Formats: sequence, C-alpha cells, structure tokens
Amino acid sequence: MSLTDLTDDQFAQLAEETRARYDELKARDLNLNLTRGKPSSEQLDFSNALLALPGEDDYTDSTGADVRNYGNLEGIRDIRDLWAEALGLDPDSLVAEDSSSLNIMFDLISWSYIWGNNDSERPWKDEEQVKWICPVPGYDRHFAITEHFGFEMIQVPMTPTGPDMDVVEKLVQDPQVKGMWAVPVFGNPTGISYSAETAERLAAMEAAAPDFRVVWDNAYAVHSLDGEFPDNPNVLALAEENGNPNRFWYMSSTSKITFAGAGVAFFASSAENLAWYESHASIRGIGPNKVNQLAHARFFGDVEGLREQMRKHASSLAPKFEAVIGILEERLGGYGVAEWTEPAGGYFISLDIKGGSATRVWELAKDAGITLTKAGASFPHGVDETDTNIRLAPSLPPLDEVRTAMDGVATCVLLACIEAHDR
Amino acid sequence: MSLTDLTDDQFAQLAEETRARYDELKARDLNLNLTRGKPSSEQLDFSNALLALPGEDDYTDSTGADVRNYGNLEGIRDIRDLWAEALGLDPDSLVAEDSSSLNIMFDLISWSYIWGNNDSERPWKDEEQVKWICPVPGYDRHFAITEHFGFEMIQVPMTPTGPDMDVVEKLVQDPQVKGMWAVPVFGNPTGISYSAETAERLAAMEAAAPDFRVVWDNAYAVHSLDGEFPDNPNVLALAEENGNPNRFWYMSSTSKITFAGAGVAFFASSAENLAWYESHASIRGIGPNKVNQLAHARFFGDVEGLREQMRKHASSLAPKFEAVIGILEERLGGYGVAEWTEPAGGYFISLDIKGGSATRVWELAKDAGITLTKAGASFPHGVDETDTNIRLAPSLPPLDEVRTAMDGVATCVLLACIEAHDR
Repeated sequence: MSLTDLTDDQFAQLAEETRARYDELKARDLNLNLTRGKPSSEQLDFSNALLALPGEDDYTDSTGADVRNYGNLEGIRDIRDLWAEALGLDPDSLVAEDSSSLNIMFDLISWSYIWGNNDSERPWKDEEQVKWICPVPGYDRHFAITEHFGFEMIQVPMTPTGPDMDVVEKLVQDPQVKGMWAVPVFGNPTGISYSAETAERLAAMEAAAPDFRVVWDNAYAVHSLDGEFPDNPNVLALAEENGNPNRFWYMSSTSKITFAGAGVAFFASSAENLAWYESHASIRGIGPNKVNQLAHARFFGDVEGLREQMRKHASSLAPKFEAVIGILEERLGGYGVAEWTEPAGGYFISLDIKGGSATRVWELAKDAGITLTKAGASFPHGVDETDTNIRLAPSLPPLDEVRTAMDGVATCVLLACIEAHDR
Repeated sequence: MSLTDLTDDQFAQLAEETRARYDELKARDLNLNLTRGKPSSEQLDFSNALLALPGEDDYTDSTGADVRNYGNLEGIRDIRDLWAEALGLDPDSLVAEDSSSLNIMFDLISWSYIWGNNDSERPWKDEEQVKWICPVPGYDRHFAITEHFGFEMIQVPMTPTGPDMDVVEKLVQDPQVKGMWAVPVFGNPTGISYSAETAERLAAMEAAAPDFRVVWDNAYAVHSLDGEFPDNPNVLALAEENGNPNRFWYMSSTSKITFAGAGVAFFASSAENLAWYESHASIRGIGPNKVNQLAHARFFGDVEGLREQMRKHASSLAPKFEAVIGILEERLGGYGVAEWTEPAGGYFISLDIKGGSATRVWELAKDAGITLTKAGASFPHGVDETDTNIRLAPSLPPLDEVRTAMDGVATCVLLACIEAHDR
C-alpha cells in the first residue's frame, strides 16, 4: 500500500516502526560500503593464473615478434584478434593499449582540444564553447573529464532504450556540440542497454559539427549476469554505412574481466580516426605493455575462454544483484516511494527516490555506517537537480554484507520518505 | 697520419684502397642495423623470471593492499621505496606509474599547455611563444614532443660536463623559456654525464619564468658499463636548498633494465609538483598497473638485486662498446676525420664526422646494407646544421654483427671524407 493511501493512524504506526528499526540499525555500528564498482576478491581470484603469465619461456606473439622489446604501437595481434571477435568488430579497426580505456578517452579529448581531431576545422581550445551531451544518470568519471576541460555538459535523460534520441538529434544540430558520452551496454549506473534503433539513430543522425564524436564506452560489453554475451552492434560498420565513418570512438577493456587497472584497454574506430590517434600516440610514447597483452591472450585462449570467465563473474555477481532487487522489492515494493532498475548485467543498480530525498537517504545511511555513493554523483558536476538518484554498487562486499547493507538502505529510504511526507 | 698530411700519392693510394674496400663491403650484401637503442635478446633474457611474476598467490603489497583491484594513483610502496633508494631520493617524492616515462613527460607538457602548471601565470597555450632549451646532440623523442607542441627549440651545445651552462643561464632570463630537456647521466647520444657543478647551477639559476621546468630524464641512472652505480645527485634537494623547489621534473624507468616498454616508470618531484600532477592524473585515470609494479619489486628484491641485474647488462654491453670504440680507433684514429665519445655507460656512442659528411656516411652505409640512425636525428627537427653527427647504437645486434657493421661504418666514414677532401 502506497504511503499516500495510508490512514493517518497507519502512517503514524509505520513511522514509529521505521524509526525504531533505524535506531536498531544505528546501534549495530556497521561499517559497510556500496560505493564503487570494484570487483570483489572472489572475482579477482578467477584471474589468479594471470599472475604467473605469460610464463618464463613465453614472449613471442603470433607474428613472431618478441613482446619483451620496444615497438608495435597498435598492440599484439593475438589479443586484438581475440577482442575484435568477442565484440564483433574488424580486428584491423581495433588497437590494444595499456590498462585503462579512461586514459585513452582523456587523451582523445585532450588531443582534440590541443590540435583538433581529424575532422576539426580548428582545435577545440579555439572554439568559443565546446558542448557535450551527457545522458543522465551516467558515469561520474566521464563527466569529470568533460568538466576538467571546461565543456558545457548538456543533460539528456535516459529511457529504457538509451538516451532520449529525439533530444539528442536536436542537440547535434548545434555545431558547438562536439561529443557525447555513451555506455551502451549495461550502462553505469542504470544497467540499461541501448536498443538497436538507438545505435542506428546515433550512427545515422546528421551532426552540424564535422568533428562530432560519440564516445562509445562499451565497458560492460560481455558482463551479463547470466554468463551469456549480450548483443554488441558493430556501430563502426553502422556509421560507415550511414556516411558517418568517423562518428564513434569505441572503447573496451578487461578491467572488470581480469584485474581492475592491470588489464588491457582497447580503442576501435575508423582507419582515419586510428591514424589520427596514432599521429599523437606515437609522439607520446613507443607502445603499450605487450607482455601484459600476451599474458591476457594466453589467459583467455579464445573467445570461449572469455565467455567462461564471464560465467564465473556472473556466478558471483548475480546473487548480489538478486539480493539488492529482492530486498528493495520486499521492503519498499508496496509503498510507492522508490523505483529501481533491474539490470541483466553490468555493475550497478540505479535507485530513484521519489520526492527528492536522495541526499537525506545518503545521510541516514552514513550515520548508520553504510556508505553509499553520494547523491548526485551520476550527474554532471555531481548535482542531481531533482535529488532523486542513488547509484548502488553491490559487487565488492560479500553477499551477506550486501544483504545487511541493503536492508539498512531500505530502512533509510522509507524513513527519509516518511520524514518528507507532508502530514 | 691525418688525411691533410698525406702526400698526393699517399692520398690517391688510400682512396683507391678505401674504394676497393667499400666495393667488397657492398658485395657482402649485409643487412645490419645500428639504429635504435633497444636491448638485445641476450639482455632481455636476464629478466625472463619476470614473465612468471608476481606468481599465482602473490598479490598483496607491503601495506596489505590487493594490487589486483583499482586504486592507488601513486603506485605501490614496495617499488617506490626500492627505486627511491636506488636513486638517492626521498620515497615520498617519487610516484610509480605505467611503463613509459616518455608518456609522463608528454603529459606534463600537455597539461602545462592546457591548464598551466602549478607556477604558471597562464596556460602555455596562451603564451605568445613557448621556448625550450635543447642540449644537442640529444634524444630525438624529446625533441619530437616539443616540436609537436610548436615550441621554439633553442639549441645549446653539450660540453664534457653537460650543456654549456653559461648559455643556459642567459637563456632562462627570457620569461618565454619554459623548460629544458636533460639526460643527465650517460646521456643520449653522447654518453656524457652532467657534472655536479652543472647540476648545482641548474638548481640554483634564476629563471625569469616562474613555471620554468627542467625535465631531468634520468633514463640511464644505473646503466654503467662496469656494473657499478654512477653518482646520481639528488637534484630535488639541491633545488629546494636553492629556493627553487619546483625546478625539476625527475624521470626514471626500468625500460632498459627489465623489459623495454613493459616495465615501470617513475616521476619524482616536489610535493607541489606532484600534487599538481595528480590533480590531472586523477581525472585521466584511476591508477597504474600495480600488478606489474609488484612483479618488478619481487624481481629485484632490493637495490642489490637491481645492481646485480645491471652487472649482467654490463657484461653484455661492455664488449659491444669496446668493439665500436676499438674499431673506430684502429681504422680511423690516424686520419683525423672523426671524433667519438667513449661513454662509461648508457646506450649510445656519438660519432662526429669532421667537415660535414654525416649524411654521406649514412648513404654509403645504407647502400652497403648497414642501417644507421639518420644524420641529424639527434637534433631538433632532425636537422644538424653542420651535418656532423651520427648516433651509434650497438646494443641490439650480437657482438660479431656489431664488429662487422662498425668495420663497414669506418670504411664509409673514410670514403666520405676522402670524397669530400679537396684535392
């Protein structure tokens, strides 16, 4: 029964019960954390073989090159071929780099800022104002980059099929709009995957800026909770078919597949975009860590090996997601005080508190020893105007802690909404 | 006997002999390469244990942190402490990053260009003209970076104690001079080490630009040919004592100690400089590959382990350097046509051809199947106005090939000088 449907007596009783429950929660002196999308120790253990790879006598890639020495800016064939197959891309459109795709995204924007990209009329630093489309809620570290460069971030609401494309198609008619963030599969924090139609519209739409780019950050390309690969449309091919071959900067990495921050990152794009990237990357350095790339190629073996690894992750993550969603449903389902996503993959669940009490929920949880991601964290500048959204990250703590924390969170949500309820 | 001292008959005979010798050389159809400073397979084998490190059960650093997960922008204590001890620096002044110090140098300049560094009055992009001091001959990849950013590169000649400091001290009175390249120990390509006085003058000199920086690229800090560590002055402390605490960006890496391009790079600087660096690095990414850092800490064990590793490298490199210098002395010593450095460490020997025939030597060698680094490569924009200098890199080929190649190079030098000799 929704809060608004309760009689005054019923409401008073619920309020009393909830306050008592919150006091009990505080008395437990918990120290739990649902903030960052880090893999758990159990998940990291799935990759421990990698700590001894490629192995003492193994330093030659499939082309016969010695990975121990300098050279090869594009990364080794072995891992490029494997990854391109996993994503359904042309291996020649994909290069393998060091550990972090975020590093590559920063550099792509930085180099466009200083020199312009391959389709720019001038460097972005010489534009009066660069504007950037930010689907919300979205990934905080994306927004931190565009904030750092002083870009104007234009929020576009997410729908169940991706960002509202009617809005996006209007926005790109402004030549100052130079780019857009996108986490197209099991997005951070909603878990939403872009529909095929959204991908096609992004590939086909006419943008006024010739150097407009979609950062297609496919961080969760293979991270389904049932261990099967989701669909990954080849947006590079789509864009080419639609006459916009340079539209996408396509990112991927093994960070949440093997070791976080010690894996291999990938950048896929058109031949022109890659040539532009390399014209700067070749000045910045000599090439990526190829020993680590070979270790990863040996670890996976082939795409089926990657699938098997993702099934292991799913076996660890799925019960945590089920716990979060089950507890929210059980504790809050009847009251109409919140909505949440039920992702089939990725690392996050997005919780929307009705009536704008997200900050109060965060405070209540903090006082009870449960650290949540700051309300607003998934919005540009960390500001959620409606104070609605909280990102839940259940991967890191053990399952029993996830349950304890979420039961506490449910109490905090209910209490915050009771406090805010005008009666 | 010098060429100029030969009688016409003697000269004609030498010319005939040298031409014949060159024809024989060409007939051998060689395919040898003395271009890049890459370690040899023999050297890379010294680190093969690293290919299986840190090992399947080893993923915890000395602070108890799990290196497999995200976090720790500064790198792990284990390798920072070891490296600081090796260089004689305060461990808190040194951070450990991914494989490439060149990447860090590029980023430091890039971020100063976009945002200004911590002492800048404005971003370098907003300066009318940024000027940069380039000791010559120097490292081609350094010059490529400052060329890429459109800086005006001002050449300063190297002396046996480092760059001509009288010239440097005058140049830094120009507030547009924002930086200087330096390879202070066994420099590329001369093998010269800066004297203690040079280091002190760099630390103490008054620079008109408050944001002036010396990129102290100590790439060959421990790379002596006798296996002992050279002196490495703590220029960070020197600079602080002299009231210029932010003067140096100090770089180091394991690239030519373990695996080229798959090692650990280090950045050491003042607390202020490091805080500024991290204010941007923390937006660019989450942190370096800590698994590789732990592997390196385990591989070396301690500073004595590093010393032992360098002794192995010396055992491989010293005979090659002796061969190069011995053949130059034997074949050219009497003719007064060339001078060369006799480094006690590093990766290069610098060969100066008198009378400006370096390009001709390069051509003759190329036609004989011996690839040399392009004449001029060690100068800004790849242009050596005097066409004098050739950088010799003997590390990569096996010793017998180094001998064969250098005997051929000596023939080419002699022939080019005979051709250029006006009689």
